[in-house]
Amino acid sequence: MAGSGYGTIFKITTWGESHGKALGVVIDGCPAGLSLEESDIQRYLDRRKPGVSSVTTKRKEDDAVEILSGVLEGRTTGTPISLMVRNTSQISGDYSEIASCYRPGHADYTYDEKYGFRDYRGGGRSSGRETVGRVAAGAVACKILEQLGVQVWAYTRSIGPIEADMSRFDRAVSLSVPTAMPEREADAAAVAYLEKAKRETDSVGGCMECTVKGLPAGIGDPVFEKLDANLAKAVMSIGAVKAVEIGDGHQVAARKGSENNDAFRMEDGAVTKMTNHAGGILGGISDGDTVVVRAYVKPTPSIFLGQRTVNRSGEEIEIHIKGRHDPIIVPRAVVVLECMTALTVLDAMLLNMTARLDRIVDFYGRSHTWKGAAESRNFPQE
Amino acid sequence: MAGSGYGTIFKITTWGESHGKALGVVIDGCPAGLSLEESDIQRYLDRRKPGVSSVTTKRKEDDAVEILSGVLEGRTTGTPISLMVRNTSQISGDYSEIASCYRPGHADYTYDEKYGFRDYRGGGRSSGRETVGRVAAGAVACKILEQLGVQVWAYTRSIGPIEADMSRFDRAVSLSVPTAMPEREADAAAVAYLEKAKRETDSVGGCMECTVKGLPAGIGDPVFEKLDANLAKAVMSIGAVKAVEIGDGHQVAARKGSENNDAFRMEDGAVTKMTNHAGGILGGISDGDTVVVRAYVKPTPSIFLGQRTVNRSGEEIEIHIKGRHDPIIVPRAVVVLECMTALTVLDAMLLNMTARLDRIVDFYGRSHTWKGAAESRNFPQE
Amino acid sequence: MAGSGYGTIFKITTWGESHGKALGVVIDGCPAGLSLEESDIQRYLDRRKPGVSSVTTKRKEDDAVEILSGVLEGRTTGTPISLMVRNTSQISGDYSEIASCYRPGHADYTYDEKYGFRDYRGGGRSSGRETVGRVAAGAVACKILEQLGVQVWAYTRSIGPIEADMSRFDRAVSLSVPTAMPEREADAAAVAYLEKAKRETDSVGGCMECTVKGLPAGIGDPVFEKLDANLAKAVMSIGAVKAVEIGDGHQVAARKGSENNDAFRMEDGAVTKMTNHAGGILGGISDGDTVVVRAYVKPTPSIFLGQRTVNRSGEEIEIHIKGRHDPIIVPRAVVVLECMTALTVLDAMLLNMTARLDRIVDFYGRSHTWKGAAESRNFPQE
Amino acid sequence: MAGSGYGTIFKITTWGESHGKALGVVIDGCPAGLSLEESDIQRYLDRRKPGVSSVTTKRKEDDAVEILSGVLEGRTTGTPISLMVRNTSQISGDYSEIASCYRPGHADYTYDEKYGFRDYRGGGRSSGRETVGRVAAGAVACKILEQLGVQVWAYTRSIGPIEADMSRFDRAVSLSVPTAMPEREADAAAVAYLEKAKRETDSVGGCMECTVKGLPAGIGDPVFEKLDANLAKAVMSIGAVKAVEIGDGHQVAARKGSENNDAFRMEDGAVTKMTNHAGGILGGISDGDTVVVRAYVKPTPSIFLGQRTVNRSGEEIEIHIKGRHDPIIVPRAVVVLECMTALTVLDAMLLNMTARLDRIVDFYGRSHTWKGAAESRNFPQE
Repeated sequence: MAGSGYGTIFKITTWGESHGKALGVVIDGCPAGLSLEESDIQRYLDRRKPGVSSVTTKRKEDDAVEILSGVLEGRTTGTPISLMVRNTSQISGDYSEIASCYRPGHADYTYDEKYGFRDYRGGGRSSGRETVGRVAAGAVACKILEQLGVQVWAYTRSIGPIEADMSRFDRAVSLSVPTAMPEREADAAAVAYLEKAKRETDSVGGCMECTVKGLPAGIGDPVFEKLDANLAKAVMSIGAVKAVEIGDGHQVAARKGSENNDAFRMEDGAVTKMTNHAGGILGGISDGDTVVVRAYVKPTPSIFLGQRTVNRSGEEIEIHIKGRHDPIIVPRAVVVLECMTALTVLDAMLLNMTARLDRIVDFYGRSHTWKGAAESRNFPQE
Repeated sequence: MAGSGYGTIFKITTWGESHGKALGVVIDGCPAGLSLEESDIQRYLDRRKPGVSSVTTKRKEDDAVEILSGVLEGRTTGTPISLMVRNTSQISGDYSEIASCYRPGHADYTYDEKYGFRDYRGGGRSSGRETVGRVAAGAVACKILEQLGVQVWAYTRSIGPIEADMSRFDRAVSLSVPTAMPEREADAAAVAYLEKAKRETDSVGGCMECTVKGLPAGIGDPVFEKLDANLAKAVMSIGAVKAVEIGDGHQVAARKGSENNDAFRMEDGAVTKMTNHAGGILGGISDGDTVVVRAYVKPTPSIFLGQRTVNRSGEEIEIHIKGRHDPIIVPRAVVVLECMTALTVLDAMLLNMTARLDRIVDFYGRSHTWKGAAESRNFPQE
Repeated sequence: MAGSGYGTIFKITTWGESHGKALGVVIDGCPAGLSLEESDIQRYLDRRKPGVSSVTTKRKEDDAVEILSGVLEGRTTGTPISLMVRNTSQISGDYSEIASCYRPGHADYTYDEKYGFRDYRGGGRSSGRETVGRVAAGAVACKILEQLGVQVWAYTRSIGPIEADMSRFDRAVSLSVPTAMPEREADAAAVAYLEKAKRETDSVGGCMECTVKGLPAGIGDPVFEKLDANLAKAVMSIGAVKAVEIGDGHQVAARKGSENNDAFRMEDGAVTKMTNHAGGILGGISDGDTVVVRAYVKPTPSIFLGQRTVNRSGEEIEIHIKGRHDPIIVPRAVVVLECMTALTVLDAMLLNMTARLDRIVDFYGRSHTWKGAAESRNFPQE
Repeated sequence: MAGSGYGTIFKITTWGESHGKALGVVIDGCPAGLSLEESDIQRYLDRRKPGVSSVTTKRKEDDAVEILSGVLEGRTTGTPISLMVRNTSQISGDYSEIASCYRPGHADYTYDEKYGFRDYRGGGRSSGRETVGRVAAGAVACKILEQLGVQVWAYTRSIGPIEADMSRFDRAVSLSVPTAMPEREADAAAVAYLEKAKRETDSVGGCMECTVKGLPAGIGDPVFEKLDANLAKAVMSIGAVKAVEIGDGHQVAARKGSENNDAFRMEDGAVTKMTNHAGGILGGISDGDTVVVRAYVKPTPSIFLGQRTVNRSGEEIEIHIKGRHDPIIVPRAVVVLECMTALTVLDAMLLNMTARLDRIVDFYGRSHTWKGAAESRNFPQE
């Protein structure tokens, strides 16, 4: 079955393996007229680049994106945008051992069971490199959202036991420090914690958060296509994420209704809320407040510490996973969270345009003229 | 946009409002040949019935299901199964006040923003009664899964601060006690806690859990259609759920890789794991172990305690929500969790049948004969 | 697999068999705010009613539609609209013979091969009664299209060798005569032709046509989702249709380019065409001219004349199909063609709203206000 | 909206413009284990290559395909297969004039209306070069169908007034002659006819046909997902096709039921038909007989003969379209028809695997073993 497509209107299909020739994405359904060049996308891809600090792998992944279609003279044409990143540094030799065994916490065994065999080179399609396509497409979604006044920002909330102090939140800090935390003190503490874990040849988990500001009320659909349901899918589809929360998340289970309800009030003639426990979503539909999504990420499963496992021949063995692995997944996954959130929110906004008949009539009355438009309004309908 | 459809092969569309004429679901894609009668479905619907204890509302909802199509002489025909439940006890008078104001924690405001107006009678489509269609369809999915050796069981994990002791887990208890907890001591404590909350005209939240046993390894798809991603969407789409977890969930963020990885080992000639922190899913694909999903549910937003809010005219007011409301959502939502999980798992199993070419060739070689079948195998393909 | 759903935004799911309890449709994605009552739908259903003339069956099908959900106080709410028609006159006894044999030209054999057995009562789901759901949903689509200035009209073009003279086209005639032909002379000739066929216990085929006027240019999508491609699917999905054409259809194959191209010209400041061989669609996208779709329909397969066939036991037999069958399918299928065309065109118009970024920005700037809307336009995007 | 995706299980997304950097396709959902190399695909792409005869354009399109992902050591892995063809010979200078005017019979005007502007270089996405992606994907579908014993063959049925004599049908001839006709006499006559049209700087239309042999009965779904409905969409989505037929197509409209019904009979213990007017499909489901699809194609709209049209400034002008254009579209479109048919049939076969519960139970019982498989069969289901 097809598992690499996402979205209904702004529809993406990603492709490529860790050690294949290239990775990429096709965006089908990008509106025409968006100013777009490779640097718009490169900026996002660079945020998932390793090798920039002591706490990420030293592998060189120089992911240069190429726009292959869908853009003419700097503007999107409305037809599919194909984006490709060539793999340049894959060294097949590195991964020979893992071809025959099942690494704990990895998808080796499950891919083998599903497909009968697997691309063992660097994890193939189950590698974190799969997110190259998501981020390239997400960069385009973010650029459109900007024009709609919607801002999507993700950052690291916690690493192991170290949590960021949100009262010191600074977007610029989150974009510059190695941990992607939004304040320098927590970053410093987390770097120290990570270096210790690295020395112990172990790895650690963490939590990342994404906020969406400027989203109008009314986005998302009832029942199965709730905005939070789609965000949950989008975020849980990122490798290594084991929990997703909206607003106050799992904490609501221990609350009273009187504590958890957000009172409505008026502000400058508009409806707003006194608190935001709900994380900007009520009944699956945005309420105009900041949307808050949180993802809990497991520790990097690739560790050098000895682990018990089995091989493809059914023998129990011990392995020590070599190679240059990040001691934590979170900092490089933050931009993936931002992109998956942006893709989800944009698609929901595009779908929402058909929610009300009066707005549809207004849209066509305003933007379309054609031979007999006036006349056609007078057509007898029997 | 259409938000009331779910599934790719086993595709359902639910419809109906709290106080409309009826509620129902159409299942399109149910395999032919399943033995099915109304009592198979009624059994599940009865589990979401109120009025059975001191801790659920006294409203009478006598939800009798009718099979309108898709079943001939007790067997499904492969064509759409239409299931309907007539609303019998709606009293329009009860809800007149809420038509004009926005209840905190409810979808009144967001529906108004999306659609321009809303069905104010009992919450309309945003009511918990919307789940009647999900449960009716889920009952059919569960019956098919049984025949595939897959067991899906949901229950209450915690209510407010009271958590079930899983070492005493008993399915039968969870099906008989008012809290849907799987052991009697926690149930008793939770009932006391709920009665206190009720006296305080407040409400409480809780956590529910679902396990899937007997699921073969290899189910789920890479990237966006991961089994856990689809479970996250399915579960987050249930009203009032604010967090979804797989396996150890949010706890993994504070762990080391050496603690969190599940070691593989051999047992009776088959690959298995020593622990199940992963909750039965690796890389988005089932690993043959028990799948564990958890949902955190907010307290019932309808409380009698005074709350500040605004009305449709933009005036700030105080409301006391009257009516017979459950002090907790969880016990009646447990069967919804079970059904959404079943629908997701079944659809993934059906999709998985096309994962391997050798199995497809085997399927058609085995089950289909036709004029010239033998001959056609020898067709020259240029 | 699910075969009973149609549409992307305006999504319908039909259900029900010829002799089951009821038939119906769920519309998921109807915009909110449409004025709708049962009589709007009944008017279309009545056009597919038999028993109105000497050339249609005398069976009584009193198809009274009931709106079960999605409409409040006469307006659509944006949530699913469930429409149901109870079967009132099914006489199970009539069809006992066909349970055991394969009627030529019918789907008895193919359903048996697909599902292992079939609902033999009146053809089950393969009966023409299946179109009740299509027509009920199509009536709603037509009502929306009216408000967008789009007119969809279908009629009988030919019956056997008798073709309507289009220079005498009169919509009112097509709605009142038994053949649904748009002029009285052809109708009279066709009635005579049909009565002769009936006397011979045979049946005849015919051609029906549908025009769409008032459709703006720009509707439809490139490549696979071309407007004509979707119309072709919609129309070929109607039982007994064996050919679909756009504009001049199969005649273009014998033409020169210089004959077939439609020259563009200006009229009242707007681009238009001097001819319309293309049938209003160029490159899969509407060109503002009248869209013309044609469907060729096979003769009713149920005839009393003796036919050779086989039964389920594999014996060769001869059958004479009894019962009250129309000698032609076309007149009652015309409204189905109209409805399938309307559903296709409406969905394409809804999808088209997201084609251009400037229009999306304009839409949200115009129709949505929310807390901080102004502020959010100034968000720094890094 | 997204218009460049096709298929439900075997899902493809094509991309690329006539004069962009490259064209390609991503196949998401190809079963694992298919032996595949570039030459398998190249063979099909070569059939749509121009410059091979006096009746096709002399443009050099050396379309060399590259497999970028989804294949490991010569076998498909089950993950997306990305196929790319670099554009090598685009000369931007050739098309400067058409940027400002609307060519009759082309999509220039409709793209402008839809998107606000268009890629004018060689027609951009509306060019016949768009089919590169379809053919590359179709080649993979054909290779899978071979292994399932299904043969898909397309060829030219007629060119202008010249029709092939099907009693002399020879697949090898259709693959070698310039017209793709399946017999040499018609080919010779058609070549003479085409050369005359070319001298007159005009173009001609034609008809192409595709047969599917070896397809088991039972493929296709009722109602909207009928096999013929999906074939109609697939074929009508090919540029320049104006009519689609199944079996005897438009001729059935003038027939009697007694002439048109295909009698069933037994042959070697299997059900078969005495004739095949139905073209292998009854009630939307394959009947085990040869499926026959026909497409009528308009003359190449690009002709040098003077034509009246308008330009983007709304001025009426006359144009003579220069450049190297085929005088007929059909011969190079034949392989596209073959590929679209193959994609449709394969997807329907994959979907059909879930039609019967007994076959699903058999599939999982046979192909999956897992820890506790036996035990799970005995799970109490309450």
